[in-house]
Order: sequence, then C-alpha cells, then structure tokens
Amino acid sequence: MNTVSLTLNEILELAKKTLLANGCDEENASILADTIMRAERDGSVSHGLFRLPAYVAGLKSKKINGKARPELENVAPSIIKVLGNNAVAPMVLSLGLPAVIDLAKKNGVAVLAIKNSHHMAALWPETEAIAEAGLVGIACTSYKPAVAPAGATKPLYGTNPISFAWPRPGKTPVVYDMATASMAMGEVQIAKREGHKVPLGTGLTKEGKETTDPGEIADGGVILPFGGYKGSSIAMMVELLAGALIGENFSFETAAKDNNDGGPPSGGEFIIAISPEKISGKGWDKHADQFFSKMSAMDGVRLPGERRHKNRLDKGPRNINEELVNKIKSLS
Amino acid sequence: MNTVSLTLNEILELAKKTLLANGCDEENASILADTIMRAERDGSVSHGLFRLPAYVAGLKSKKINGKARPELENVAPSIIKVLGNNAVAPMVLSLGLPAVIDLAKKNGVAVLAIKNSHHMAALWPETEAIAEAGLVGIACTSYKPAVAPAGATKPLYGTNPISFAWPRPGKTPVVYDMATASMAMGEVQIAKREGHKVPLGTGLTKEGKETTDPGEIADGGVILPFGGYKGSSIAMMVELLAGALIGENFSFETAAKDNNDGGPPSGGEFIIAISPEKISGKGWDKHADQFFSKMSAMDGVRLPGERRHKNRLDKGPRNINEELVNKIKSLS
Repeated sequence: MNTVSLTLNEILELAKKTLLANGCDEENASILADTIMRAERDGSVSHGLFRLPAYVAGLKSKKINGKARPELENVAPSIIKVLGNNAVAPMVLSLGLPAVIDLAKKNGVAVLAIKNSHHMAALWPETEAIAEAGLVGIACTSYKPAVAPAGATKPLYGTNPISFAWPRPGKTPVVYDMATASMAMGEVQIAKREGHKVPLGTGLTKEGKETTDPGEIADGGVILPFGGYKGSSIAMMVELLAGALIGENFSFETAAKDNNDGGPPSGGEFIIAISPEKISGKGWDKHADQFFSKMSAMDGVRLPGERRHKNRLDKGPRNINEELVNKIKSLS
Repeated sequence: MNTVSLTLNEILELAKKTLLANGCDEENASILADTIMRAERDGSVSHGLFRLPAYVAGLKSKKINGKARPELENVAPSIIKVLGNNAVAPMVLSLGLPAVIDLAKKNGVAVLAIKNSHHMAALWPETEAIAEAGLVGIACTSYKPAVAPAGATKPLYGTNPISFAWPRPGKTPVVYDMATASMAMGEVQIAKREGHKVPLGTGLTKEGKETTDPGEIADGGVILPFGGYKGSSIAMMVELLAGALIGENFSFETAAKDNNDGGPPSGGEFIIAISPEKISGKGWDKHADQFFSKMSAMDGVRLPGERRHKNRLDKGPRNINEELVNKIKSLS
C-alpha cells in the first residue's frame, strides 16, 4: 500500500474542506472533521478518513443534513434527549455530552438518548469524554442486520457495538469499544483473501452450517455474535437499549428505511453516565487503581484502551493510504 | 438420583424452618425462603434448596446476620444505596427494589448500590421485579477470583454474572441472567465425570495452555471468560460496576476477607432501572414486540427467560434430590 504523510492538522483540514464542499456548514464540518482526525491520531483508522466518502454520500443524497442544529430536551429529571434532526453523530454529541455529564454529576446517574442522527464513528469518543469528566460512561448503538442471533441462520442484529469507559483522574481512562459481532464482515473478507481460517463460531455458511472457512461466510453466509448464546444476549440488549427504549429504530427497521447510498443511516444511540464520587465518595479512584494494578501485573494482560492512548502521544504525521487520500481530494 | 416430591409450599416451609433454626428471624427467613422456593419453582435448581446448606454455614459462622435490618440512604437524587448490614441479599433487595423502582419511574433512571450483603441467589429475581414494574433492569455482581482475564493464566475475576430484563406489560418479561465465565467450574467437573470434551476457550490447564479436556481445567487449571477478549471486557466491567463504583469489594478483595465457611461472602451488587415510558413515551412496548416477533419467528431462536416462565406455570409439586432434602432436614 502506498501512503502519504499527513500531519494531524492536515488530516483535520482535508476532512473539513471535503465536508464544507459537500453541504456542511462550518460548525458541522469542524466537529465531524475533528472526530475523524482523532480516529487517525489514535490509530483507529477504520473510523478515520476511511469513513469520509460514506459521509459525503449521505450528504449528497441529502439524508444527512450538513447544516443541522440538533435540539436538546430534558424529558425527565435524569434523562436528556437530543433530537439529531439528521445531523452527523459528533454534532449531536457535542450538544448532548456536556449536558449528560452535568446531569450525572448532579444526580449520580443520567441517560442521554440520541435520536435521528447519523453515526459512523467509533463509540469511544463519547464514553471517553464522559470518563474524562470523572464519570463512568457506557454507550451502544445498532445499525442494519448483519448478525444472526445465536441459534438462527439469518441476520437480525447489527454489529451493535458497545463501549465502556472507566475514569482515572490524572491518567488515561480504561476504555473498550467492541462490536458484539464475532468479527466485522470486512475482517472475514480479509481472512478469505489472505487464505486464513476463522475460529468456529465466527459465522455460518449460506446453508446455515458452522464453518471455519471465511469464504463460506462471506459468500452469502452470515456473521454470528461473539461468544455464542451469551454474546447474542448482549447484542439483543443493544438492539433494545438503542431501539425501543429510546424510541429509535431496531436494525431491521433501519434497513427498511435507509436509502442505501452507502452513508450512515438515521438512527439512535443510548448513552449512560454514572458518578462513582456520588455513589461511593472520595477514594474510589485509588480503589480502582488497586484492581488495575492487579490486572496489569498479570503476564499477557493489557488494560483496554492502552494502545490507543499510546498512539495519541505521537504528535507527528500519520501515513495515510494514498489511494484513499486521492479519492477524498476528488470529492471537493 | 432418588427424589422426593415436595409442593411449592413445602419447599418454602422447609427452607424457612431451616433458616429459623439457624439464627434467622421471621422476616429474614421468610424473604430468603421465598427466593429459594421461586428458584425451585422456575427450574433454576442450582439456586434453590441446593444453596441452603451454604447459607446455614454463613449463619453459623455469624458472618451472615440472620436478624439484620438493612438501611436505605438516598445519596444523590437518582442514587439509592442500601447498607446490607450483613443481611442475605433477598432481604436487602426487599428494601432497595421498591425504592429504585419508584425513583426510576420519577427520574427516568436510577441506580441501586447494594453494600455489605450476602448474595448466593440468581440475579433474575431482581431484574425481573424491575421489569414487572415496567422498567428495564440490569444487575451485576462479582464474587471471588475464579476466571482468568483473557491473555492471563491465573484467576482475577469472579464468575461475575450479569442480568438484563426487558418489560412487556401484560406478558412475561424477556430476561437473561448469565455468568461472564465461559462455564461454571461445577459444569466443567460434570463434563470431566461424564467424559465429555469442552469447547476450546472454556479454560486453561495448570500450565496455562488451551485445552478441551475438562479434567485439565478442573485439576489446577482455570476457567476463562465467555467469548475471549470481548467477554473478558464485560467481566472487567462487572468488577468495576459492582466494585469501585459502589465502594464495594473487587473479587480479589472478597477472597482476602472471606472466612471461607462455604457461605456467600459479604459483597455488593450494582443495579440500574430505566424507564422506557419516560424516555420514549407511549407505544414503546408495542414497538419492542415487533422486534420480539421477528426474533421468535426465526427457527432456532428462543426469547431469553421463556423456559423459566414456562416452568413457573406448573403449580404442582417438584421432585427434589432426596439426599439434599435429608441433609437440609438434619440442619434444624
């Protein structure tokens, strides 16, 4: 793969310029470009510039409103709802996160229910922002059916990611952000191309049989949830929390409503923030550090999020796929 | 296995009499006996009378206070803390659940943080009670180290169960209650006895190697979390939510503090209740039913909790292990 070297600021400006040229106003473009730059910065490249052409597709088809102004509603004493009004998710989060953080600091726990926004980024930016404010953050969202419930042979669940962040004042938070799918279909396709087998439980053939051959999964088969029946239950929970609980689409509804332009469909996100300080008072962070010390002292164990935070320390340029950069440049 | 036939009322009375004879007062005995009877009723036999000798051990050693009166504190507008004062968990829940349900109905979301109680029951009784009040319920708790974090070869996490319940007004809730361990060590021992292999990923040998031989796991090896690295992250989250978040023990601390009498150690539980009605208004239940209809229509898929609710419809006597009944009778 040929790459070009871009500074973090060049990545930000490339993304912003492309978004401005495709219907975003200054505020929407700046906020989404920042999320894209931070993904590249942290080595989360599948959520960085790689997503930009899809956002542009959604802007061009007008399903995304690049000039949207989300609206915040306090629907109950500890619940904040943000109507996305077809904005990209980072724009919606920029309004909702400070509000849910304030509310959780006051009430001990608060929920942020996001509606009608277009999410195609990672979830760690939101849970990490909550953790950086000293709170526990949990976020999840659904998408379009790609994953069969355990026992079934046809998709119903999205890849349904869930992210969790634990605050560590003075240190980087402990954060994970994972699909509840066993593997992304893109990874299955890479395994197929490279001739690797995949673990049993990754997916089924088009006849609904278990297989370790990625080709059989990619060619009309289906992905399974991670961890069998237990992971399937977690994936179901994500459908419900990011669906009927907040009055938003289930994955099967998203698929029925989306225009399939390749851009992120309209959907919701469920976020919760909880205050350890309010629940257990001073000293909670030192207590947690005793646990993390035990974990870190074990051979072979890494605290979730460590790799990303290490990447972040590098302020230098990043090597970006040249073909991708050229494709993006052609969009403005 | 020889069994004796006991009516549900006989099960309740046997449990209650045994608890009264071992230091419980009327209220503690009634509430714990009811939880035990409901486990037998629902076919959740590993959490029924089977646990009674362990509770008695904890009562005899005085680590459990059979006359305890838990105390409720409103520590923040949406947080309820219950100090267990060494009561058995069902006694603590009988005080905390109505309070967290009321608060979640008012504020949209509320947390119940339970401290210093002795939990050896399933978690579905608490999440199901929340769902029967029209709310989403999530509960989790840790125990003593029995599960190695993914990548490690020594235990740090407890079996760390997590339960989720979705309310369905006029119908039984959809409920799951699962260990984040791949399998209980008891099940591994059964597989060893019966000569079955276990799936790769269930556990490690005492040398820290992967194995499908349950004997190698049972004889000085260690259980792994379900679902590899992803399940391990869920197990870690349970340690944090039921530990430092609520000011309670991590599993490694529980092991260090417990007197190892075989009874449930002192520990905490994290519970959250969320109101779909407050977040998304009327119609949320019909919306969710569309999703459950899709799920149920798939061959091979069962809604979590269905089997237990079906067992519950049988009001007749249950066949109980005769040896267990005799053992229990000898305790009073």
